[in-house]
Amino acid sequence: MRIDVVTIFPEYLEPLNVSLVGKACARGQLDVRVHDLRQWTHDRHHTVDDTPYGGGPGMVMKPEPWGEALDAIEASGPSEVRPVMVVPTPSGRPFTQRLAVELSAKPWLVFTPARYEGIDRRVIDAYAERWEVHEVSIGDYVLAGGEAAVLVITEAVARLLPGVLGNAESHRDDSFAPGAMADLLEGPVYTKPPVWRDRAIPEVLVSGHHGKIARWRRDQAFRRTSALRPDLIERCDPAALDKHDRALLAELGWTQDQDGRFGRAAGPVEE
Amino acid sequence: MRIDVVTIFPEYLEPLNVSLVGKACARGQLDVRVHDLRQWTHDRHHTVDDTPYGGGPGMVMKPEPWGEALDAIEASGPSEVRPVMVVPTPSGRPFTQRLAVELSAKPWLVFTPARYEGIDRRVIDAYAERWEVHEVSIGDYVLAGGEAAVLVITEAVARLLPGVLGNAESHRDDSFAPGAMADLLEGPVYTKPPVWRDRAIPEVLVSGHHGKIARWRRDQAFRRTSALRPDLIERCDPAALDKHDRALLAELGWTQDQDGRFGRAAGPVEE
Repeated sequence: MRIDVVTIFPEYLEPLNVSLVGKACARGQLDVRVHDLRQWTHDRHHTVDDTPYGGGPGMVMKPEPWGEALDAIEASGPSEVRPVMVVPTPSGRPFTQRLAVELSAKPWLVFTPARYEGIDRRVIDAYAERWEVHEVSIGDYVLAGGEAAVLVITEAVARLLPGVLGNAESHRDDSFAPGAMADLLEGPVYTKPPVWRDRAIPEVLVSGHHGKIARWRRDQAFRRTSALRPDLIERCDPAALDKHDRALLAELGWTQDQDGRFGRAAGPVEE
Repeated sequence: MRIDVVTIFPEYLEPLNVSLVGKACARGQLDVRVHDLRQWTHDRHHTVDDTPYGGGPGMVMKPEPWGEALDAIEASGPSEVRPVMVVPTPSGRPFTQRLAVELSAKPWLVFTPARYEGIDRRVIDAYAERWEVHEVSIGDYVLAGGEAAVLVITEAVARLLPGVLGNAESHRDDSFAPGAMADLLEGPVYTKPPVWRDRAIPEVLVSGHHGKIARWRRDQAFRRTSALRPDLIERCDPAALDKHDRALLAELGWTQDQDGRFGRAAGPVEE
């Protein structure tokens, strides 16, 4: 997979040389190219922003440098492949594990992290006519720019590429990954020593009884999900639950409606 | 504000020297200290992980180095202030702008980004008895480690510190910030030139009519939110809407229930 990033803070993307993504690049599984947007400006001050039409605070990123940058990147690649453009913005569709999986199948991603109030809309409209474009938000909070979001999305995508994670098994129990634990938060994990600062590990984990361990882990996952992410319980597929799961959820105050969906009358207020 | 980060990839945190956070450090508004967890190991191989009790794939981070690291950090600070511990984990409570605001009022944050399957649970349990601890998830996707999440949370928090953003006004129109645009995605923005690649800016923005411009922007925000984040329309406070807002939402297919809450019978399937 090839990844291009256009930014006014190329040094913010240094972590792409480190750890999982850095190793994937060293192995040739990823080809990451970071570009300074200002190289596509033509004035002495390398201006990339200007005041917004219609007034208001903040500055808007000018369309011309972005257009030149994206054209130059497209021209630098194979003519038979079109890049997929990923625009990190708080006004985007939520970035999810599902979208990470989808993007991991693309041959070429181009990220356009913005600063200030964002990029002139015409840039996104223009490239959306030629390329696949995803405007995505990594969460309901405000950053100073899109660069941190690029690191997040790149890492989420890169770890799904074939051969990048050492052990294929490690995907299976991920929170938000498809499978038995789909849409449940993972419960607690423990390693040696058996007692640390007077705290012992749960006995069941050294029982050697695989069924009991699996059940205990699933219970812990349900308890944690119910406490911290009631939205995931509400969205879960009732058909994926067994009798024990349903009894546990009833104990935690959940009831099922006529369609089997879970709800909780007097649940804690969600933040 | 003081921020400590304990990690096995200190170089991943280099972006904290750049841009907004880097400038806040240079000005003395932030004191960021990044620590290598391995300095608190005592074996030749600087081991930080071991196999999970109960079996299964992946490795778990050992409790001892974390305990020593956190004690050393606490001892290095003023005795009258306790750190607030922030644990990035996909099993956490969602990180939101509200939590960013809350954390921005704390004098001292300690981040514990994990790798592998996470940190031995006893570490979080032990420190939660002495410190305020937040286990937070920046979104429903899986990363290779918590370091990218630390960059995200630090940036979201740092930009809220007094004097860090140049123009206080810039907070007001943020997506997810309190105020008139609360819980609406921001609509499109434009700057010069008036025509770029045959695309003209919307005429209303050069009308000079402030009321019309504000209304147009609000309409655009509602249209975008309805299309990309119907969950925000469902959660919005009906009392905050005017007659025009309600008419627009009706046009977009939204209906109000007896409590005034918005719903859409045949809305697009949410991803």
